[in-house]
Amino acid sequence: MLIREDEIRPTFGGHEKFVFRNGWLKKGIDAVRVDRLIFTRDEALVTLGVGKNMVRSIRHWCLATGIVQETEGTGLAKPLAASMLGERLLLENGWDPYLEDMGSLWLIHWQLISNPVRAFVWPVIFSAYFDAEFSKKQLIVLISKQIEQLSIRTTEGTIEREIDCVLRTYVPAGGVRGQANEESMDCPLAELDLIQAIPEENLYRFNIGSKPSLPTAVFGYALFIFLLKRLQTRRTIAIEEVLYQNGSPGQAFKLDENSFVDYLEQLEYQTSGALRINETAGLRQIYLTDDLAVSMENRAYRLLDDYYGRD
Amino acid sequence: MLIREDEIRPTFGGHEKFVFRNGWLKKGIDAVRVDRLIFTRDEALVTLGVGKNMVRSIRHWCLATGIVQETEGTGLAKPLAASMLGERLLLENGWDPYLEDMGSLWLIHWQLISNPVRAFVWPVIFSAYFDAEFSKKQLIVLISKQIEQLSIRTTEGTIEREIDCVLRTYVPAGGVRGQANEESMDCPLAELDLIQAIPEENLYRFNIGSKPSLPTAVFGYALFIFLLKRLQTRRTIAIEEVLYQNGSPGQAFKLDENSFVDYLEQLEYQTSGALRINETAGLRQIYLTDDLAVSMENRAYRLLDDYYGRD
Repeated sequence: MLIREDEIRPTFGGHEKFVFRNGWLKKGIDAVRVDRLIFTRDEALVTLGVGKNMVRSIRHWCLATGIVQETEGTGLAKPLAASMLGERLLLENGWDPYLEDMGSLWLIHWQLISNPVRAFVWPVIFSAYFDAEFSKKQLIVLISKQIEQLSIRTTEGTIEREIDCVLRTYVPAGGVRGQANEESMDCPLAELDLIQAIPEENLYRFNIGSKPSLPTAVFGYALFIFLLKRLQTRRTIAIEEVLYQNGSPGQAFKLDENSFVDYLEQLEYQTSGALRINETAGLRQIYLTDDLAVSMENRAYRLLDDYYGRD
Repeated sequence: MLIREDEIRPTFGGHEKFVFRNGWLKKGIDAVRVDRLIFTRDEALVTLGVGKNMVRSIRHWCLATGIVQETEGTGLAKPLAASMLGERLLLENGWDPYLEDMGSLWLIHWQLISNPVRAFVWPVIFSAYFDAEFSKKQLIVLISKQIEQLSIRTTEGTIEREIDCVLRTYVPAGGVRGQANEESMDCPLAELDLIQAIPEENLYRFNIGSKPSLPTAVFGYALFIFLLKRLQTRRTIAIEEVLYQNGSPGQAFKLDENSFVDYLEQLEYQTSGALRINETAGLRQIYLTDDLAVSMENRAYRLLDDYYGRD
C-alpha cells in the first residue's frame, strides 16, 4: 500500500489560473469539515460563495497547501478531510485561522514547496537558480526539461500557465511589493516579497538573504520535516544539503548562508542542543541527538505550538 | 496515485488476538479526533485505559471497520483521521455513538466484509460456503489457498490466529447465542447470531436465512456500496451476482434467496423505483435509473440518515 516517491505523478492546472486569495483556505477547510464531498456538489457554489472555476481552484489550493487531504472513499470522488496541520492552523481555536501572522504565510509557502504532486513547479523553480535573476523563458525551458524526464505529456501552454501562476502568487499584480491586502486579488503570499519583477528588463529576481519576518519556529518546522525524510538512519547531514538541495528550507526561504546558519544557531538554543551545528575538518554538519531523531515530527509541531502560543 | 485493487496486500495479526469489545470503536475514534497520532504515543495507554497490546488492537479494529483511516503524513507513523462513516455514526451527535441499535452492528459487520486489506479473511470465509456447515480445518485450507494465490508468505499459525479471531467475533465464548453484553469479553457482533458452534461435532454453522434485525436501510447501504464498484458503466446486474459473489451483501448477511428478494422489493419501494427488480426470460436483474447510478454513494448515506432519524 506504500506509494513510492517515483510513482508520484504531478498534476497541473488545478488552480484554474487563480492564485489563492485571502480567506480561501479557511473557507475550504471549514466547508470540508461540514461535508467531505462538498466540492463535488452543486451547493458548493452557494456554500463557498464563488463561481464554478473558483470552487475548483479553492479545492486545488486546499490540497496543494496540504491543509486538506484526500481520504479513502467508495465513490468516484474521494472525500476530503482536514489534515493535521490544517486543523491546528485554521480551526476557530487554531493557531492563526485568519493567517494574520506572517509566520503562517511562510508556513503555507513551505507547504507548497513540499508538495511535488500538486505544486510540482514550486520546488523546481525555487531550487533551480542560485543566481538571483531569471526570465520567464528560462523557467519554461527548465520545467519542460523536468517534465520530459518524467515522461509526462503536456503542452507548452500548460507549462506556461503553471509558471504564470507561481509568478502571480509572489509578485503583486501592481508590481508594488508589500501591498497585498484583503481587498486585493493578489495572493497573500505576495507579502513574503520572495520574487520581484523587473519589468523594464523582462526579468524576475529572487530576494535572497535574511528574512526578518520568517520566525525561527517556522524555519525549524520546515527543517525538521525536511530532515525527517532524509535522516531515517543517519544522525548527521551536511549544511550544504539543507541549504541548496531541491526543496530544501534554504531554497524555499531563499536564505543566504549567513542567515541560514543564524537560524540553525537559534534552533540549537531553542532545542537545548538536541540539534547542533558541528564543524569537523572544515565540513559543517547538522547533528541530531537520537532523542530528537525519533520524535522529529512531534518536535516540529511543538515548535509551532510554542510560537503561536507565545503571547 | 491510484492504488489498483490487485496491488492491495492484506495485513494480518493487527488484532493482537483480541476481538473488539463494546466501546472500543468509540474510544478509538474519539482519541483520534483529539490527537491523530495518539496510537504512536505512550500516553495512549492512559487515554484509552488499556494495556499496550489492546492499544494496538483498538487501532486495528478502528482501521479494519473503516471508522478511521490513515492520512498522509511526513513521519514514520501515518496520522489517522475519522472517516466519513465513522463521523456520522460515532460522534456524540451521530447516528448511534454507542452502537445500541442492531442496525449499527450489521453496518460494522458489513464494513469488515468490505475491507480486504485489514480484514482479508472476512469476505473469503463468508463467501466460500454456500452450505451452512464448515469446520475450522476447512477454513485453514481455504485461507491457505487464497494466500498462496497472492504469493504472500505466512505461517499456518498466522492463518489459524486470523480464523480464530473471526470465529470468536461471531461465536460468544460461552457458546450461548444472544448473550453478548457490555460486561462480557465477547465482540458485540456475536449478537448478530451469524455463526453458531456445534461443539459436539467440532463444526460451525452459518445461520442462513431471513434476518429480522437487519434493517432495509443497512441492507440498502451495503448493496449501493457494492454496486458502486460494479456499475460504473452498466445499469443492470444479475441478482445472482449480488447474492452469491465474494463479498456480496447476500453472503455478508447470509441471506437466502427469498429474504434477499424481500429486501430488494422493500428497497424498490423506498427508492420510489430508482432501483427495480426486472425479470426477462427467466433472468432476474437489478436495474438502476441513471439518476440513482450517478448519486449512489449519496443515496447510500441517505438511507442510513433516514433510518437513524426515524423516531
